[in-house]
Amino acid sequence: MTAVGFIGLGLMGEPMARNLIAAGFKLRVFNRSLAKAEPLAGLGAVVCASAAEAAQTGGIVVTMLANDAALEEVTLGAGGILKTLGRDGVHLSMSTVSPETARKLAEAHEKAGSHYVAAPVFGRPDAAAAKELNICLSGPAAAKARVKPLLEAMGRTVHDFGTGPGTANVVKLCGNFLILAAIESLAEALALAEKHGIDRAAVATFFSETRFNCPVYKGYGAILAARRYAPPGFALELGYKDSQLIQATAAKARVPMAVADLVDERLRASIAKGRQNLDWTAIELLVAEAAGLSAG
Amino acid sequence: MTAVGFIGLGLMGEPMARNLIAAGFKLRVFNRSLAKAEPLAGLGAVVCASAAEAAQTGGIVVTMLANDAALEEVTLGAGGILKTLGRDGVHLSMSTVSPETARKLAEAHEKAGSHYVAAPVFGRPDAAAAKELNICLSGPAAAKARVKPLLEAMGRTVHDFGTGPGTANVVKLCGNFLILAAIESLAEALALAEKHGIDRAAVATFFSETRFNCPVYKGYGAILAARRYAPPGFALELGYKDSQLIQATAAKARVPMAVADLVDERLRASIAKGRQNLDWTAIELLVAEAAGLSAG
Amino acid sequence: MTAVGFIGLGLMGEPMARNLIAAGFKLRVFNRSLAKAEPLAGLGAVVCASAAEAAQTGGIVVTMLANDAALEEVTLGAGGILKTLGRDGVHLSMSTVSPETARKLAEAHEKAGSHYVAAPVFGRPDAAAAKELNICLSGPAAAKARVKPLLEAMGRTVHDFGTGPGTANVVKLCGNFLILAAIESLAEALALAEKHGIDRAAVATFFSETRFNCPVYKGYGAILAARRYAPPGFALELGYKDSQLIQATAAKARVPMAVADLVDERLRASIAKGRQNLDWTAIELLVAEAAGLSAG
Amino acid sequence: MTAVGFIGLGLMGEPMARNLIAAGFKLRVFNRSLAKAEPLAGLGAVVCASAAEAAQTGGIVVTMLANDAALEEVTLGAGGILKTLGRDGVHLSMSTVSPETARKLAEAHEKAGSHYVAAPVFGRPDAAAAKELNICLSGPAAAKARVKPLLEAMGRTVHDFGTGPGTANVVKLCGNFLILAAIESLAEALALAEKHGIDRAAVATFFSETRFNCPVYKGYGAILAARRYAPPGFALELGYKDSQLIQATAAKARVPMAVADLVDERLRASIAKGRQNLDWTAIELLVAEAAGLSAG
Repeated sequence: MTAVGFIGLGLMGEPMARNLIAAGFKLRVFNRSLAKAEPLAGLGAVVCASAAEAAQTGGIVVTMLANDAALEEVTLGAGGILKTLGRDGVHLSMSTVSPETARKLAEAHEKAGSHYVAAPVFGRPDAAAAKELNICLSGPAAAKARVKPLLEAMGRTVHDFGTGPGTANVVKLCGNFLILAAIESLAEALALAEKHGIDRAAVATFFSETRFNCPVYKGYGAILAARRYAPPGFALELGYKDSQLIQATAAKARVPMAVADLVDERLRASIAKGRQNLDWTAIELLVAEAAGLSAG
Repeated sequence: MTAVGFIGLGLMGEPMARNLIAAGFKLRVFNRSLAKAEPLAGLGAVVCASAAEAAQTGGIVVTMLANDAALEEVTLGAGGILKTLGRDGVHLSMSTVSPETARKLAEAHEKAGSHYVAAPVFGRPDAAAAKELNICLSGPAAAKARVKPLLEAMGRTVHDFGTGPGTANVVKLCGNFLILAAIESLAEALALAEKHGIDRAAVATFFSETRFNCPVYKGYGAILAARRYAPPGFALELGYKDSQLIQATAAKARVPMAVADLVDERLRASIAKGRQNLDWTAIELLVAEAAGLSAG
Repeated sequence: MTAVGFIGLGLMGEPMARNLIAAGFKLRVFNRSLAKAEPLAGLGAVVCASAAEAAQTGGIVVTMLANDAALEEVTLGAGGILKTLGRDGVHLSMSTVSPETARKLAEAHEKAGSHYVAAPVFGRPDAAAAKELNICLSGPAAAKARVKPLLEAMGRTVHDFGTGPGTANVVKLCGNFLILAAIESLAEALALAEKHGIDRAAVATFFSETRFNCPVYKGYGAILAARRYAPPGFALELGYKDSQLIQATAAKARVPMAVADLVDERLRASIAKGRQNLDWTAIELLVAEAAGLSAG
Repeated sequence: MTAVGFIGLGLMGEPMARNLIAAGFKLRVFNRSLAKAEPLAGLGAVVCASAAEAAQTGGIVVTMLANDAALEEVTLGAGGILKTLGRDGVHLSMSTVSPETARKLAEAHEKAGSHYVAAPVFGRPDAAAAKELNICLSGPAAAKARVKPLLEAMGRTVHDFGTGPGTANVVKLCGNFLILAAIESLAEALALAEKHGIDRAAVATFFSETRFNCPVYKGYGAILAARRYAPPGFALELGYKDSQLIQATAAKARVPMAVADLVDERLRASIAKGRQNLDWTAIELLVAEAAGLSAG
């Protein structure tokens, strides 16, 4: 069996790689900071000195990186996978990046005879560890079929959105937008309740047990009720990165998104106030402050 | 057993009254348009000629009316329940009204020796018929205890928010705000997807099966994906009434709520465009139009 | 010559009354706190014990009051002018009130055989003292003609907006909205400049000397550049009162006004933070804080 | 006397170049479409085949181009001015571009021994023709002194904002933002007035003769009152380009600008509706439509 390349062993990538190993895949891993690769070496992974080296001709490479620039670098850069992946190779790209970057990379791969499959995920590091990720998928049919066993080893559900190279990324951005919108809405509702002397937790619990009994409202409702913003589950700074991808994608597609503008501003103001390392739910503090509530 | 008064036999009140009868309560019903009371007469309810007549000294009267003015009229008006309800009577007020109206009526009842219990509900007419309402509750402890059997006959869950006369109403307004915010957010997300050529229904389904698998996102997601705005489940005009209650409550409490402002505008513009009789989800049309999507 | 009634000797009313006296009018003045009337008594004004007493049958009464409730009280209340003003009297109403209140009072006057002329003003106390007010006018033609000499004694320009009872009030609200919008816009622009290390005053001066060389941008630009919010020229709390009139008027007329929503929120949040006694330009502090600027 | 290079003979550049010639400067002109250069040849300008050719070692080159990409191309591109301008040359850059582009080009010039002066302008083509531009200036002191005679030949006023390479560009973006904000505010105010049956032109005239008697409110007020959006004075599409520069600059500097977000959305939605070739004031149509006004 050809080894699978795996590039990017951060908070998300590391448990995903472990799940692939647990499912019997041989991995060739690469991470900018090599120290993070060592524990996987102990599980049998081959640690590579470059992205290029992790890819094998005609094989599959999974990437899970922090942003568009990092993904472009490991794909198109000097030590990137594009050349080594070669004919019929598949790049399984799971990072949250813009649809534009996805289209650009897909084109580069097609020119080189390889294929690009977009497969961004929903779920935090603990969901990654527990194989509970929800994965959005788009790309060429044959390539998608080929990576399916890997996806099943890493996630709980896979949702196919067709053949467009950036389609799955649009859906991923829609999802992050919906989460941010839910956070902002909950923050405003809880401020209204608190200002009337009503217990925040009682209100959050009520909604998350009745009409909004889903992971987003349950999870974020509890965090917001208790204002538990450190340590971050997802750092506000990264949330702003995603929000800026939403902004750029909406601007380019000419889609006015008023709530997206609002949450982008909240994230921006939070960073301006030095809150970039709190959880992204900490945008709530701005709502509380504007309502004259002392938030802690 | 003393008969229970029931005032307001609209789309919501009528099935709620039926459930009380089914649970064994004797009802004295009143509705402005008497025709609506007749089917209940067939089930044994006593049809009264005025609100006052529906109330019995020391008894319980349930009200389920369209707005604050109607509730004030049947309570404080010439033929209102305040005088007939008398000492130790309980007014179980289930309409969506402002916390201010609730406080005003509670005060009037206390002066008259009776009690006011706020118990606004979440759920549409079909949920009322199926006894699946979620009921928020606040008011004096003894009065709440006394109405509990009625609430259990009409709803699936009851959530106690303490003794404040308007507290449950604030929670109800929070809920309607959260629903409007979810509608607006979904509308924006679906516009972004559709503008990228992605099937609206596939996106709505994906979210409502994964991180947002709750009644609000499932139900409204399906309506928004298909743009099924007529006949209305909840008329946009009524949604605007509720939104204006949210606005007034937030303004008075000095709570800035940017998303609430936005949805209020959407409702207002929809009415200005003649869409008051569509479902309140039809605010989505403004989002679609602004994105240059032909919505139907 | 019949004396002219003048009710309301606050920061605006007092200098306006002085200008009428200086122009040769005999005044019968009333103010809730009588102390404020004494200086005018020294100039020959007759100090009255009630609003009713200040009005003379068939005469003219000027009112300049703090809000809708005060105006309704001195007009329709027990000691109000409606009865004493009598047949052919004219109520020259110069306060900033809602068009709805104007219509209501106009109707009451017509029933009583007297007339209501709306004449709200633009300008601060110093402009009132200097006869530099800009006055908006609407109401019945004959009544407007009759009050013209008074208006010319109090203002620099008079702008006739027809016969509608509340028309001039709508224009006045439009103006206050435009001022608030200019304040918010300047605050955002100056934040962008300051965050780039550019001197706020230099930017404000540049615009107010070139494309925006008008009183609003000159005056507010200077205040905002220096963040000179105390003592207030126009207290933030009063600005919120006007903003709420704009909100109510827009909501009733079904006119979505996104910028009006935004400034209303700014005022509300400022009050929630305890800034109600600063100048209304102090909404800028929220912009500065959100940008991470230390505002003094 | 060394000839001055002039690159970009569009609606703005052409009359600016004419004014330089009229003031006695010898010009070497370049324009992508050569036809536009011919009339200037008749006035003695030397028509060049490339940007590089228009620049002379140690001389001055004026650029007036449509966007950041065009400016980068004529500066850094293959046939760009950077190499030919050489030691001690000055690039007088008058286009509306981002401060980031300005900084990037300034750095490239300093490396090459030449200097970059930012001098964006306020004013439309007719103001350019009439030498009535207001010019913002920033850059190295000696270079600014050297270009002063040219600026005086093209504009009415010059405002120095110091030595920062992108400083003048920030001020220019602030100005375009303030204009957009004024357009939106006027549109909302006029909608409120029109919905109350008040003549739009009367309201616009009133404000532009009193507290807002400055070019922006006079000019745009008249256009908005009459809804005269074609032919465009400044095409909406170009306005969106500028708005996106504002968005990017604010995002990078972490300055939340809520009104800027709003107008950006208005421009975006207008383009989505096919209005890109109308005047940028045509964002008003969205306000009118949302208020249920038939706009034409």
